[in-house]
Amino acid sequence: MASVKVIGSPTSAEVARVLTCLFEKDIEFQLIRVDNYKGQRRLPDYLKLQLFGQALAFEDGKQTLVDSREICRRVAEKYAQQGNKDLLGSGTLERASIEQWLQTEAQNFDPPASALVFNLAFAPLLADLEQDREAVESSKKKLNAVLDIYDRRLDETEYLAGDKFTLADLSHLPNAHRLVHHTDCGVMFESRKRVARWWAAISSRASWKRVVQMQQEPPPII
Amino acid sequence: MASVKVIGSPTSAEVARVLTCLFEKDIEFQLIRVDNYKGQRRLPDYLKLQLFGQALAFEDGKQTLVDSREICRRVAEKYAQQGNKDLLGSGTLERASIEQWLQTEAQNFDPPASALVFNLAFAPLLADLEQDREAVESSKKKLNAVLDIYDRRLDETEYLAGDKFTLADLSHLPNAHRLVHHTDCGVMFESRKRVARWWAAISSRASWKRVVQMQQEPPPII
Repeated sequence: MASVKVIGSPTSAEVARVLTCLFEKDIEFQLIRVDNYKGQRRLPDYLKLQLFGQALAFEDGKQTLVDSREICRRVAEKYAQQGNKDLLGSGTLERASIEQWLQTEAQNFDPPASALVFNLAFAPLLADLEQDREAVESSKKKLNAVLDIYDRRLDETEYLAGDKFTLADLSHLPNAHRLVHHTDCGVMFESRKRVARWWAAISSRASWKRVVQMQQEPPPII
Repeated sequence: MASVKVIGSPTSAEVARVLTCLFEKDIEFQLIRVDNYKGQRRLPDYLKLQLFGQALAFEDGKQTLVDSREICRRVAEKYAQQGNKDLLGSGTLERASIEQWLQTEAQNFDPPASALVFNLAFAPLLADLEQDREAVESSKKKLNAVLDIYDRRLDETEYLAGDKFTLADLSHLPNAHRLVHHTDCGVMFESRKRVARWWAAISSRASWKRVVQMQQEPPPII
């Protein structure tokens, strides 16, 4: 029995980030999904939970964590010698650069990206939710500014933190994927030459492709 | 938070039986699915588990049960005043008739039906499993004999235990559905006029249609 447990749906951005990390590290785990039903309807609790990032829990032995980036760090540290060994670099300088871009993702990329995914991809599906046009406009401005910085950075290096794919890149995958495939923001990635090259490289990793497949697939046939 | 929990995949016949009963009774519950992964592969444990009927656990408060027919009985008894009130009848005579046909399903219908579903629908999907032709032939004979009895019974009554849909009918749904849709045994149901009428009636219930939909659907989009 795997001692690593992920509780949540692969369609949540938080969960998808952790699954990608576990696949990169080639770690055995259990994925536990919980849905609430009342009569024949699935209750919409999961929407609220996931929008506020509460839909993830991670257990490794006795340790329980709920923040996806923190989980990715711990996994990369604890299983340093397994799977992809570059996710957190191998020296202090590399680690510092990875941390810097991980924090840029969390503090500068994620807020506008999440707001755009929510307003442009999810709100239209929920009858009682309206798009917040002001939030959309200001988020697009912020995201454009962040992607300009990325485009300059990616002129110097192959990936954000250096010449290898690391947690800093990985962390962008779930929300960037939603923006590119489920909103009109794809052009913001495609129109920037180096961002486009970077996106093509990180989104074609086997680990991420497996997560996208899990987001789409029905349960096993038996 | 729902106190009723079902642990397993809706694609398992055992789990599907319980879900149908919960939907008929309009009961709030949590469905918890567990999948094991190693690297990017889903481990095939669930196959073995489900083939041996181990893939179901049911919790209601402090009580834990694993037999699907027993769970259906307990649910129909405990929530007698909720949802469909006919599943276990309303008097001793009705209950006795329902029990008789529930046992016929468990002891006479289920063994050949499960063997046929396993050999004709699942074995072809599993590279290392061969069809057991002898088991297929003897199971077809047994199933034909059971369906002959059903056809005579259903000439007297609308459903197996009487004129209402009960647990006795419900219990047939998961394996009968597999036989009709995923093997060449559909003709055994269609060629018997009253069995065909009965199958059309029970398989078109909203509760069962919802379970079939759950067996096919990917996780929620968020």
